[in-house]
Amino acid sequence: MRKLVALPVLSADALSSVAYGPEAMLAVLVLAGAAGLAYSFPVGGAIVVLMLAVGLSYRQTIRAYPHGGGSYIVAGDNLGRVPGLVAAAGLLTDYILTVAVSIASGVAAITSAVPSLAPETVPIGVGVIVLLLAGNLRGIRQAGALFAAPTYAFVTAMFALVAAGLADAAGRDFQPPPVPPLPITETVGLLLIMRAFSSGATAMTGIEAISNAVPAFRSVEWRNARTTLTWMVALLITMFAGIVALIRLTGVVPTAQETVLSQLARLSFGPGWMYAFIQTATAAVLLLAANTAYNDFPRVLSLLARDGYAPRAFMRLGDRLAYSNGLVLLSFTAALVFVAFDGRTGALIPLYAVGVFLAFTLSQTGMVVHWWRLRDRHWRKSMVFNAIGAVLSAVVFLTAGISKFTSGAWVAIVAVALFLVVTTRIRRHYESARTALRLRPHAVELPAHIAPSPSPGPGYPAPAGRRPRGTGADQEGEELPEEVRHLAIVAIATLDLASMRTLAYAASLQQPVLALHISLSEDEAHRFRDYWTLWGEHLPLEILVSPYRAVIAPLVHYLEALHHQHPDVTLTVVLPEIVTRHRRHQILHSRTATRLRHALRPLPKIVVTSVPFHLP
Amino acid sequence: MRKLVALPVLSADALSSVAYGPEAMLAVLVLAGAAGLAYSFPVGGAIVVLMLAVGLSYRQTIRAYPHGGGSYIVAGDNLGRVPGLVAAAGLLTDYILTVAVSIASGVAAITSAVPSLAPETVPIGVGVIVLLLAGNLRGIRQAGALFAAPTYAFVTAMFALVAAGLADAAGRDFQPPPVPPLPITETVGLLLIMRAFSSGATAMTGIEAISNAVPAFRSVEWRNARTTLTWMVALLITMFAGIVALIRLTGVVPTAQETVLSQLARLSFGPGWMYAFIQTATAAVLLLAANTAYNDFPRVLSLLARDGYAPRAFMRLGDRLAYSNGLVLLSFTAALVFVAFDGRTGALIPLYAVGVFLAFTLSQTGMVVHWWRLRDRHWRKSMVFNAIGAVLSAVVFLTAGISKFTSGAWVAIVAVALFLVVTTRIRRHYESARTALRLRPHAVELPAHIAPSPSPGPGYPAPAGRRPRGTGADQEGEELPEEVRHLAIVAIATLDLASMRTLAYAASLQQPVLALHISLSEDEAHRFRDYWTLWGEHLPLEILVSPYRAVIAPLVHYLEALHHQHPDVTLTVVLPEIVTRHRRHQILHSRTATRLRHALRPLPKIVVTSVPFHLP
Repeated sequence: MRKLVALPVLSADALSSVAYGPEAMLAVLVLAGAAGLAYSFPVGGAIVVLMLAVGLSYRQTIRAYPHGGGSYIVAGDNLGRVPGLVAAAGLLTDYILTVAVSIASGVAAITSAVPSLAPETVPIGVGVIVLLLAGNLRGIRQAGALFAAPTYAFVTAMFALVAAGLADAAGRDFQPPPVPPLPITETVGLLLIMRAFSSGATAMTGIEAISNAVPAFRSVEWRNARTTLTWMVALLITMFAGIVALIRLTGVVPTAQETVLSQLARLSFGPGWMYAFIQTATAAVLLLAANTAYNDFPRVLSLLARDGYAPRAFMRLGDRLAYSNGLVLLSFTAALVFVAFDGRTGALIPLYAVGVFLAFTLSQTGMVVHWWRLRDRHWRKSMVFNAIGAVLSAVVFLTAGISKFTSGAWVAIVAVALFLVVTTRIRRHYESARTALRLRPHAVELPAHIAPSPSPGPGYPAPAGRRPRGTGADQEGEELPEEVRHLAIVAIATLDLASMRTLAYAASLQQPVLALHISLSEDEAHRFRDYWTLWGEHLPLEILVSPYRAVIAPLVHYLEALHHQHPDVTLTVVLPEIVTRHRRHQILHSRTATRLRHALRPLPKIVVTSVPFHLP
Repeated sequence: MRKLVALPVLSADALSSVAYGPEAMLAVLVLAGAAGLAYSFPVGGAIVVLMLAVGLSYRQTIRAYPHGGGSYIVAGDNLGRVPGLVAAAGLLTDYILTVAVSIASGVAAITSAVPSLAPETVPIGVGVIVLLLAGNLRGIRQAGALFAAPTYAFVTAMFALVAAGLADAAGRDFQPPPVPPLPITETVGLLLIMRAFSSGATAMTGIEAISNAVPAFRSVEWRNARTTLTWMVALLITMFAGIVALIRLTGVVPTAQETVLSQLARLSFGPGWMYAFIQTATAAVLLLAANTAYNDFPRVLSLLARDGYAPRAFMRLGDRLAYSNGLVLLSFTAALVFVAFDGRTGALIPLYAVGVFLAFTLSQTGMVVHWWRLRDRHWRKSMVFNAIGAVLSAVVFLTAGISKFTSGAWVAIVAVALFLVVTTRIRRHYESARTALRLRPHAVELPAHIAPSPSPGPGYPAPAGRRPRGTGADQEGEELPEEVRHLAIVAIATLDLASMRTLAYAASLQQPVLALHISLSEDEAHRFRDYWTLWGEHLPLEILVSPYRAVIAPLVHYLEALHHQHPDVTLTVVLPEIVTRHRRHQILHSRTATRLRHALRPLPKIVVTSVPFHLP
């Protein structure tokens, strides 16, 4: 990717965050009234420092991980298994909330312009999630001019807004208007300031995107990626600082009805086309930011699956089914969160900060360890940058987690714990499965008769060395001779063409065959036996009478008993299966074969064979 | 069942209908103000005549169908296939709306007493449906004292209410109070009167229950059933007439906030314990009435399935799965209707009347034809009773269907039409399937080698007469000799113990075996072939290279090609299937076997065998 294409595509998530970050900071400060708002410059300044620090920190990551250094990889590589998994949990939370927050903020941009849509916030947001899901299931990829346009439009809109606002303010000699009296619910204190800081820090969510995507750049990849990251951070800081300054200079205060950006745009440009452009660009870039999560979420899942922490089905990104499952999981969770928080951006922010800065902290701590172990040229400088980034990220994470613990952040803690338990168990299962499945010389239980032997002729070697075919056992099939190693059991519900074909198949395998029928009454059993003399080709028949109309249970019990009597015999249950031409007709036919297959799965040494009968 | 137990159990549905019938009548008349309300006596009188006529009509049905004469059976027997299906459609609609209307009315009884619950009508109703579903899935049956109590309590409550009201009115010399001025939106006319009549006629829904359940009575069944029906109709008419009279004498007018019954009870007894008793008994009997539909709906489905009009899975009422599916279907549709109409009884009434009286009309018309064909003793009298019942029911059906066509009744018409199309198609499918499956002498395609032959010894006869085992075909499996009739194809993803066991199973069947492996690259293919020389026991191996990571499609194409080259060979695809000890672990393993089985289903002459490998 060229840098000018990579920039808008990879930075949509980060840059769009200024649509809600400054507002989130302000929403906390305003709780202390005018005295609180007075802190917007220092807190905003601290966030700019954080942006610089994290930006510099990721520049080090790009150099160290030219093949892409996501938080999961960096934390796992350098800190070990559990921190890696915690980082992955943070990342997945991050992506889910990127969708929820971006869409909440995008819908707020729309309802600010068209207030009559405000009561429909939740349905609109869920609708957008459904559309994103549908688009991504059909294979929309994030690339090209179509995806570059909203980011450039948004950046243009923000610069225009800041420029116009500053020009206005210059006319007033940069005197902020008098602040209207505000209800005061809290006093200015360290906790309030820290909360404002951690909320405002969500203005930099998505900043890690470039360091994940280094291999997508042109050669030399890591150099180009670093340059792009620098541009992005510069843009981000300019826009963030400009908006914070503008808010202070105009005296705009967050309200529930209209976003701060919308208020600023309306103040500078009135309700004309420029206002419409700003709101549209904001909504579009936020939609694009939500869409980036649709690319990242399945990627993290596939990394987890590669390491055995997630179902293997997620591993192959090329496998449409696995990929689709990941997308559906993301959409469903995001929609759930969105609905649970009524689509209010402000309510989602603390949860978002927890997830994002948890991943940031672990990733950058991992980098500190990385440099300490590596100690190449420049390692000291890099380690210092990463350490500063890690400490500042940890501050944000802890502030968000502690100050908002009761109002939502506990959900994140519980989710991370649950995630650790589940992923560890999945890994343990895969490990025990691998041990059980491993081929060991001389430990393979191959039956003697398929041991290598002179082939009976050119072509397929037929298994040799079997003892004479089984004899004994009366018509009822109760006493199987010990020499028999195979027994094919044909379950017959009614004497029809499908059953007869199944019987023919079983018999042609040249193994002993036993037909099995479930009768619901003694009468029916007698009738069936009469028919059998006509049609049964002298094959042995066993009838089980099941007065309570159960079919599966008596069959399973009979087969279990048979297995216990003759544990050396491999039982092959041969079932006719009616196949209809149209799939919708399939529900009109008995699912007994499928149900029996499921019921027999746990039993040892029982093989199930389905002989299809195709209806015309 | 004794009559005194049968009465409350079988008549809960009918008797509880007086909780909404009179109100539904009044709600139409009040549209014409005081002038309309003046018609409550004549219209109520007409409904009493209708109750008598339909009651007498069902007395004839009980005599003619001592084994139970539901509308579907009677209409189908006497009028033919299509009218029978239309009656069944009416019945199923009836049961769905019995649930919706009874619960709507029961919730109204509660919200009348506790108005603060009124905004939660829809959630409460849906909750009750979920509870009914859960209870019935767990096997609550409608019998015994528990189910008799609400009906007797309700009858007691209604008689107390009417007695107290009449005593009050006697004190006022039966002078009704002056009617307050009412908004007039319609004028009194034939259409209004007919609509009031058809709405009020829902006070007799459920009257057919006894004629469906004749065999449940003690001997002589039909005589006891008739007596019980007479008692029930007498109770129904007394309660209905009493309530209509009371409404007139007290001047109560239907409102959206409080049911008419609640208003009457409050007037007579004040808000004390007697009022609470009346409301509780009303809600309880309505809940019981809704529960009756949970017994009747699966029964009608099973009759339809017996005749081939519904999936055969519904046929066996004893089969828990089929029964559960019916219950879920009923609950889901009832909840849908309930939510769509906001849980308002009044809005559901026209739809209810259409379904119920459609079934009544067809059933009684069927009885007319029955008597005409039979002409036994008393046939003229019975035919006249049934004819009167049929004509009056048809009047109610047509009035409800036409006057409310645009506001919901069209749904019923569309549903009936759809039902006819679907049931007829199901029947057609079953008929063609039966033809395809029928055993015809000399037409059974049994392979020659399992034709009756001298058994090789006592016990299981081994198939005889097969030609010498297949030879030819090189290692690649491309050229199969014509003599081969079977080929076992073992699909191997990785060389592990599960695959080796599967291979051993296939080889031990003494048929030619071909191992098939999908490689994602040429490199992997070479590696696999090297391993095969170590572990493959000299069995032929075919490797398909699939660079696009697809697995199912290349396998299916290969098998299709193999079948076309050797149409006389039966291909048996043998698949290893990993079985985990805990079902929740199953999603951690590849579903390739299941997906392959589905993909292979439509192909001819391909048998699928699953060899389980149980993880420890």
